[in-house]
Amino acid sequence: MKNVLVLLPILDRADYQEKLKAAGAGCSFTFAARDTVTAQAVQAADIIIGNPAPKLIAGSERLELLQLESAGADAYVGKGILNEKTMLTNATGAYSPSVAEFAFAVTLMLQKKLHIYRDNQQKAVWEDEGMVTSLADSTVCVVGLGDIGCYYAKLVKAIGAKVIGVKRRLSECPEFVDELCLTENLKDVLPKADVIMSVLPGTKATTHFYTDETFNLMKDSAVFINCGRGNAVATDVLYRAMTEKKIAAAAIDVAETEPLPADSPLWGLENLVITPHIYGGYHLPVTLERIVDIAAGNLSAWLAGQPLHNVVDFSTGYKK
Amino acid sequence: MKNVLVLLPILDRADYQEKLKAAGAGCSFTFAARDTVTAQAVQAADIIIGNPAPKLIAGSERLELLQLESAGADAYVGKGILNEKTMLTNATGAYSPSVAEFAFAVTLMLQKKLHIYRDNQQKAVWEDEGMVTSLADSTVCVVGLGDIGCYYAKLVKAIGAKVIGVKRRLSECPEFVDELCLTENLKDVLPKADVIMSVLPGTKATTHFYTDETFNLMKDSAVFINCGRGNAVATDVLYRAMTEKKIAAAAIDVAETEPLPADSPLWGLENLVITPHIYGGYHLPVTLERIVDIAAGNLSAWLAGQPLHNVVDFSTGYKK
Repeated sequence: MKNVLVLLPILDRADYQEKLKAAGAGCSFTFAARDTVTAQAVQAADIIIGNPAPKLIAGSERLELLQLESAGADAYVGKGILNEKTMLTNATGAYSPSVAEFAFAVTLMLQKKLHIYRDNQQKAVWEDEGMVTSLADSTVCVVGLGDIGCYYAKLVKAIGAKVIGVKRRLSECPEFVDELCLTENLKDVLPKADVIMSVLPGTKATTHFYTDETFNLMKDSAVFINCGRGNAVATDVLYRAMTEKKIAAAAIDVAETEPLPADSPLWGLENLVITPHIYGGYHLPVTLERIVDIAAGNLSAWLAGQPLHNVVDFSTGYKK
Repeated sequence: MKNVLVLLPILDRADYQEKLKAAGAGCSFTFAARDTVTAQAVQAADIIIGNPAPKLIAGSERLELLQLESAGADAYVGKGILNEKTMLTNATGAYSPSVAEFAFAVTLMLQKKLHIYRDNQQKAVWEDEGMVTSLADSTVCVVGLGDIGCYYAKLVKAIGAKVIGVKRRLSECPEFVDELCLTENLKDVLPKADVIMSVLPGTKATTHFYTDETFNLMKDSAVFINCGRGNAVATDVLYRAMTEKKIAAAAIDVAETEPLPADSPLWGLENLVITPHIYGGYHLPVTLERIVDIAAGNLSAWLAGQPLHNVVDFSTGYKK
């Protein structure tokens, strides 16, 4: 009988527990909290659903399937964590509505200068801050056209934006994208973008992806949003872009160092909106529901010897 | 030869001036700034396009057509301002994209708690503020289904919201509205609304339209946006609703007294977002373009003796 250890935040959700038990009929289930689970419980598991601390997994010979609750798998693909036979799957897709809706809301906030008006409110200042731009008239460049990028593209397209999708490999152009561009040709489309929404995964290839030169190519009226990984933009590059007004405004939900240190010069930039890596997580109820669905599907497929969804490519740390 | 006085901010826009001249062929045109135009110039005009100070108009026997650049006409319908033969038309519709897009952006800002995160940023605080809501899962109640209300309804509908349109008179239900409700039955639909967007005109009937009881009927998770006229909600009613957490958050672009006095208790409310009556105005380029189009259309129609658009009903101060 296989031991299934579930570390999702569903200790009070009998409905979700039942769904997983039904998918893993015949298995022995343990539901525990990620923060308090013991190394012993982790080492005794054949299948884990959730994200245990990587150090608790190291050395486990039993673990055959690790179904993460996160999209990123960076912490688990290093040497010495998983044994050779472990199948690693992630929760890509589960976070797309949450992340994309946050990015969409922030895009509009920046375009309408609502961050400036909020600052003015703090000072009891009733003052017109001038012209704004419209998403309906905007060309939106989505850098990283995965699940989140596609969800965001559909949102901006629904209210009239023109969408340029930027991705590593060419594919058929989805109906909600007006133009596809290879990542290596990004510089050709940046000068025409009014919005640049970046949702690049955290890989070697994307570290410090945005440079001074990249920001120089953007319109000075453009807004930039980073909700992928913080190291896509070096802090000093971002700081220069904002203080030298290379673009009109930006928003980051991720930073090179998280939490962003209290003495970071980024905090005080008027034209930069900072959120504490909250676009994803469990901020929308639908996210947990989607994770349980992905996990239940992969659990029953694994037990039946069928192919899994969201298998992680160890070379990139992301879905194959 | 008729004298046409134009007070729109188009002194540097030869294209717009030409469009108006073409519509008023045979007339004598004067283009001036609203703030510096003389009483003499106003009194000499047969037709005015724009909003002169009402006191400059009083006593004019010549004025036959006043095409306002605003949607509201409150300031011109009182006794002793216009002579009996003056036709009054407004610019209803011109501001709809600007106002509706601002209201849309603010709706998402409130639902995603972006105003709280901005406050946290001011204090260099990296802190998760918990669950948010999704417009895609929301029932949105649009109170006042005129041009702006309809434009807003289309935006929220485009990203999946359910829309309840509230209006004075029943009509056919537009395709972007799921349910129509008469204003007098508002209390029946408030308890199911996740978003209440109010864009009521400033008339006697709408003064202090929202009461303590109205806010009591709303969900405590609801968000409320007022972008009609400030007197639809008394300051103390709004203050109580926010401090007693009758709803989750609100935004006002209008206030009972404008500018909102620096000592108003509203400024410091964390769950209230205040903007200085900027949803409309000339904050989007398309607004001015639309006003010129409306004015050109009415000017040529007036000269040809044809029916005009946007004729103001003196009893309500709004479009008939």
